Amino acid sequence: MITMATVSEYIEDNKEQFKNELFDFLNIPSISTDSEYKNNVKDAAYFLINKLESLNMDRVELFETEGNPIVYGELITDESKPTVLVYGHYDVQPPDPIDEWETPPFQPTVRDGDIYARGASDDKGQSYTHLKALEAYQKTDTDFPVNIKFIFEGEEEIGSPSLVPFIKDHKELLECDMVLISDTAMFAEDTPSITYGLRGLAYMQINVQGSNRDLHSGVYGGAVDNPANVLCNIISKLKDDDGIIQIPGFYDDVVELTEEDREAYKKLPFDEEEYKEKLGLEALKGEKGYSTLERTSARPTLDVNGLWSGYQGEGAKTVLPAKAGAKVSMRLVPNQDPKKTAKLFKEYVHSLAPDTVTVTVTEHHGGNPAITDLSFYGLQAAADAFEAVYHKEPFFTREGGSIPIVADFQKVLGAQSILMGFGLNSDAIHSPNEKFALKDFYRGIHTSAKFFELLPSHS
Amino acid sequence: MITMATVSEYIEDNKEQFKNELFDFLNIPSISTDSEYKNNVKDAAYFLINKLESLNMDRVELFETEGNPIVYGELITDESKPTVLVYGHYDVQPPDPIDEWETPPFQPTVRDGDIYARGASDDKGQSYTHLKALEAYQKTDTDFPVNIKFIFEGEEEIGSPSLVPFIKDHKELLECDMVLISDTAMFAEDTPSITYGLRGLAYMQINVQGSNRDLHSGVYGGAVDNPANVLCNIISKLKDDDGIIQIPGFYDDVVELTEEDREAYKKLPFDEEEYKEKLGLEALKGEKGYSTLERTSARPTLDVNGLWSGYQGEGAKTVLPAKAGAKVSMRLVPNQDPKKTAKLFKEYVHSLAPDTVTVTVTEHHGGNPAITDLSFYGLQAAADAFEAVYHKEPFFTREGGSIPIVADFQKVLGAQSILMGFGLNSDAIHSPNEKFALKDFYRGIHTSAKFFELLPSHS
Repeated sequence: MITMATVSEYIEDNKEQFKNELFDFLNIPSISTDSEYKNNVKDAAYFLINKLESLNMDRVELFETEGNPIVYGELITDESKPTVLVYGHYDVQPPDPIDEWETPPFQPTVRDGDIYARGASDDKGQSYTHLKALEAYQKTDTDFPVNIKFIFEGEEEIGSPSLVPFIKDHKELLECDMVLISDTAMFAEDTPSITYGLRGLAYMQINVQGSNRDLHSGVYGGAVDNPANVLCNIISKLKDDDGIIQIPGFYDDVVELTEEDREAYKKLPFDEEEYKEKLGLEALKGEKGYSTLERTSARPTLDVNGLWSGYQGEGAKTVLPAKAGAKVSMRLVPNQDPKKTAKLFKEYVHSLAPDTVTVTVTEHHGGNPAITDLSFYGLQAAADAFEAVYHKEPFFTREGGSIPIVADFQKVLGAQSILMGFGLNSDAIHSPNEKFALKDFYRGIHTSAKFFELLPSHS
Repeated sequence: MITMATVSEYIEDNKEQFKNELFDFLNIPSISTDSEYKNNVKDAAYFLINKLESLNMDRVELFETEGNPIVYGELITDESKPTVLVYGHYDVQPPDPIDEWETPPFQPTVRDGDIYARGASDDKGQSYTHLKALEAYQKTDTDFPVNIKFIFEGEEEIGSPSLVPFIKDHKELLECDMVLISDTAMFAEDTPSITYGLRGLAYMQINVQGSNRDLHSGVYGGAVDNPANVLCNIISKLKDDDGIIQIPGFYDDVVELTEEDREAYKKLPFDEEEYKEKLGLEALKGEKGYSTLERTSARPTLDVNGLWSGYQGEGAKTVLPAKAGAKVSMRLVPNQDPKKTAKLFKEYVHSLAPDTVTVTVTEHHGGNPAITDLSFYGLQAAADAFEAVYHKEPFFTREGGSIPIVADFQKVLGAQSILMGFGLNSDAIHSPNEKFALKDFYRGIHTSAKFFELLPSHS
């Protein structure tokens, strides 16, 4: 007589195999922000298609879009059961600055229990947990307790331009009771948390054009305005010394923190000294009048993401540059609107631009902020699943990052999102040496499997 | 009977050969600011050694230094005659931004009568004229009218770090009555001019370090100060809206323009509308209260030469950068001191730096401003030579650029410099598509030959 392993046993027994599969996924440089990697992005989509096809799904399909393909799979076990739409993204951020990686970004390496690779945490490692949870049910002949739909996109890092139209065009296909997303961080190591709030994003680019060519700074210095100086002047006027954003109307729609909210923030375990030490900083800085946790999750911010002009090489070049540029993004909170914010930004920057140069402001992708109702049954099932695996009651937190698609799922499908993050803020996503703890990859698979088990009883 | 050609005829007859030789010189990417090109810089030195050796010199020598070699040659015809030390540099600026060159920077090409190549004007094309002038005397068996010494360095674009100690160590070798330098621009096309004033230079670099790694702007935005924003704040405080430099003490040593100086400036032919049009600008900008010509030659300036931080690629990357940097240079006028100015700059920038980041200020090469006495006989001989070749009386002007070595020749050798420029301000030196008019290359050789002929009678 053959005794089938339980779902949990299967996960424990197949860790090595799961890790190897994830490594294959991480080997693919699926950088969506750089068109040079278009084929690699496609390879990552096909990787997922193959993995889904190896599961016992009712339907697996690759949808071509104007951009990168959308990977879809579904398994309907019982129409009366809740349907969970699992969302993830297979594209990754560029690895720059590449020199600062200790091991190559697309050759995953384990050091001290962490997987180092671009996408390890954001979002290949995290999203892959749910496929393996389903596999554990199927390989142990355990009835899958809910209906499941998978949707993976390859344009999250460029603002999901194809996904939103896709959702609108496929409302019926994607019909669900909730969206499950693992693309956020836990509050701290071994401290599970469920993110119920996310900030939105408006991402802008400022280009300043001076003369029609680079000039010699000796010959022309004093005659013409300098685009780099002008750019710095403009940027210096975006925030004041207290970190208050100076764009007229910027704060108009911001939902202020209540006394209750602020009390809840105070209860969160947070060691500011340790936080500074990890970042190598003597002092923190942000909007005056708010705590660090409030500033990173419930308050809007403005940051320069990139800056360029003239000569950046070794030594000295006496050039008076013709051009300067900057990327500037703003994190938004309920009820700020990215489009409106972008418009206010443009108007303000143009109002600061002198007639000695030409200033152009363009908008990259944006996203709405989002909040999930704390009483939603899916959130409660997720909390119980975390507690069962991590043996700790999770915190409910708001996070500073943006997953714009959360607001779109809410708006188009009427579905709330469960943000079941297994990452850590120290994972260095979007930085060199991105990592994901191997133990959280495995605990993630367990938590996902537990969530599916517990969900029907909460509904 | 063989009739020897005159010096002038020889120059006319050998234009093609002169151009081909210059092209060989321009083929060498002798970029001194980038250590990758070290061997190419050396090749350019050997090119000159070979050319000097093909002339009938008393002595030709390559002096090794800690940096790039110094090329020396001398021909003493008669101790009682004036001795002219011809100075030039065989190193060039980097060609960035390389994409904007219409033809490759190190493949010289003639278009519309102009030689396009990095170094065409600055300074290979200009300095080579004097070797060919000497050749014209020798090949026509014409007695050379003066004593001549050549000194070519390969570090002008990085501030001549080896040349100054070399001059100090070889005062006797370099003893001379004047220094002849062709590394400046004429006032306008067909409008010869002699530069009798040059600005000095202080070139600084600001580095701002925030956290120990790039951060995610969502997760950390609001918690930490942003090095790029801080850098922009600092730079915005270097000048006010009227273009007045805000560094305390910066103007203390500036020799103010006299009423006479200002009257002389007003007499120079200058069409501001045409100037703007050539640069593609709607409006000029500089220190309030001074004309454009005054601002570009007799007033100090401050310009950002380079700026960098975070993500500069296509699309959007939501990074909160760990680092930001800028190159900032100041053009100085008599009697400003580059070292003192650098110190004032450092102190001011540090006074603006918040404790949330680490700001480092370093100094690249600098140079003293210089003025040559208008009554000096060498200047008069140069003026007559120009008039003989260009059929126009040259203007005496002050130029905005810096040739720091001019101040050093004055200080160490007690020799005044004749700045006999054949270039144009539109030559795009230090920019893409640097050029030098072929006709001015040839007229330069004629003018140089004429200068040597006329000099003894002026002494």
